[in-house]
Amino acid sequence: MSQKEKTTIVLFSGDLDKAIAAFIIANGAAAYDHEVTMFFTFWGLNTLRKDPPVSVKKGFLENMFGKMMPRGAKKLGLSKMNFAGIGPKMIKHVMKKHNALSLPQLIELAQEQGVKLVACTMTMDLLGLRKEELIDGIDYAGVAAYLGDAADAKVNLFI
Amino acid sequence: MSQKEKTTIVLFSGDLDKAIAAFIIANGAAAYDHEVTMFFTFWGLNTLRKDPPVSVKKGFLENMFGKMMPRGAKKLGLSKMNFAGIGPKMIKHVMKKHNALSLPQLIELAQEQGVKLVACTMTMDLLGLRKEELIDGIDYAGVAAYLGDAADAKVNLFI
Amino acid sequence: MSQKEKTTIVLFSGDLDKAIAAFIIANGAAAYDHEVTMFFTFWGLNTLRKDPPVSVKKGFLENMFGKMMPRGAKKLGLSKMNFAGIGPKMIKHVMKKHNALSLPQLIELAQEQGVKLVACTMTMDLLGLRKEELIDGIDYAGVAAYLGDAADAKVNLFI
Repeated sequence: MSQKEKTTIVLFSGDLDKAIAAFIIANGAAAYDHEVTMFFTFWGLNTLRKDPPVSVKKGFLENMFGKMMPRGAKKLGLSKMNFAGIGPKMIKHVMKKHNALSLPQLIELAQEQGVKLVACTMTMDLLGLRKEELIDGIDYAGVAAYLGDAADAKVNLFI
Repeated sequence: MSQKEKTTIVLFSGDLDKAIAAFIIANGAAAYDHEVTMFFTFWGLNTLRKDPPVSVKKGFLENMFGKMMPRGAKKLGLSKMNFAGIGPKMIKHVMKKHNALSLPQLIELAQEQGVKLVACTMTMDLLGLRKEELIDGIDYAGVAAYLGDAADAKVNLFI
Repeated sequence: MSQKEKTTIVLFSGDLDKAIAAFIIANGAAAYDHEVTMFFTFWGLNTLRKDPPVSVKKGFLENMFGKMMPRGAKKLGLSKMNFAGIGPKMIKHVMKKHNALSLPQLIELAQEQGVKLVACTMTMDLLGLRKEELIDGIDYAGVAAYLGDAADAKVNLFI
């Protein structure tokens, strides 16, 4: 059994600000040599969507969900002060000004650092999201896998 | 002292999607033989309300809270894409289509599996909710009981 | 190394109801002699702002953030049923009626009990918040300090 500290984060939220917070904690933990797993469920899955639409056959409701939900890390809104998309632009602007990593860069860094990104297969089924629509290099699992990791971890967050 | 793994979940949110996520994790943990306690506080308490109005004498504000807050698991809205109640209908529709358990079924399953459902008595006082208005077979406690359980648990989530 | 149980809470949210829940848990844990650390990040930092505006030189966006975000614990809105500020008044009214501590009182109690309140320096940079604008007696740190504390703690919540 590994001696590494373990950290798990469930990203349930599809808000830009919460996704940034989740990845900053995940990257920080990985830098401290924790074994980090992030589970993307419900709206959090939108963080992992590819930007250009991927053509897949879907039912009516799945199609609607796909159209209405933000496509990827660059399209997320804020949990507060979203102001029809002006808030996210302001946040991105100040982050750039302060040389803070953007969400797509934080995701890339997480993958480079070996943070395990896991898409919740049950939510994918429900919302009609296909593997082809999500970014490469991620894992797929259900609640059982999450619980297995969380029971071994010291830090477990739901964001 | 019990050797069972322990899991606690605070359900603060009154959103349908978050309540579903909370109960899926709770039921999963119970299936893996964890001792699971869910604490319902603030808006999360609405998940435990009985559907038909229960006649109890209340003050003016308590009455207003009671009227404005959703009455039970079937009435909750979504944290995102609620669209005046269409979002919850869509989610319920796809869940049924995929044979996923509905929130009322998830609650029933949790009670069958021995998940301890605890209503926060302090919030009940504040919002003027009475025991008669909540579903049967639940416990009542305050923050001290929560902390006692959480300090023994490996997985503690705030949802 | 200390034998005390440790508890950490990240307060990400700037909502009155979530801040109250966070401080009730923190004060409860401190009363049970846990070593408690609260990390205030993103909108959660607004909880720690001083009420009267503090005159500091800022750039345009920092100034706008400063103006648009609620100034301190007395100004926060609710995550649900905010109704343009009527919801918070109702909550404060019933809390007073039930002799529950208000958020400013909960913060004071936390400081008296030795709960460590830590402002996230990265968010302060991003949102342009200065130390002069935050209440006295708090600490300043980044994600590394949080992870150090969380890895030692039994209860870690993200609110």
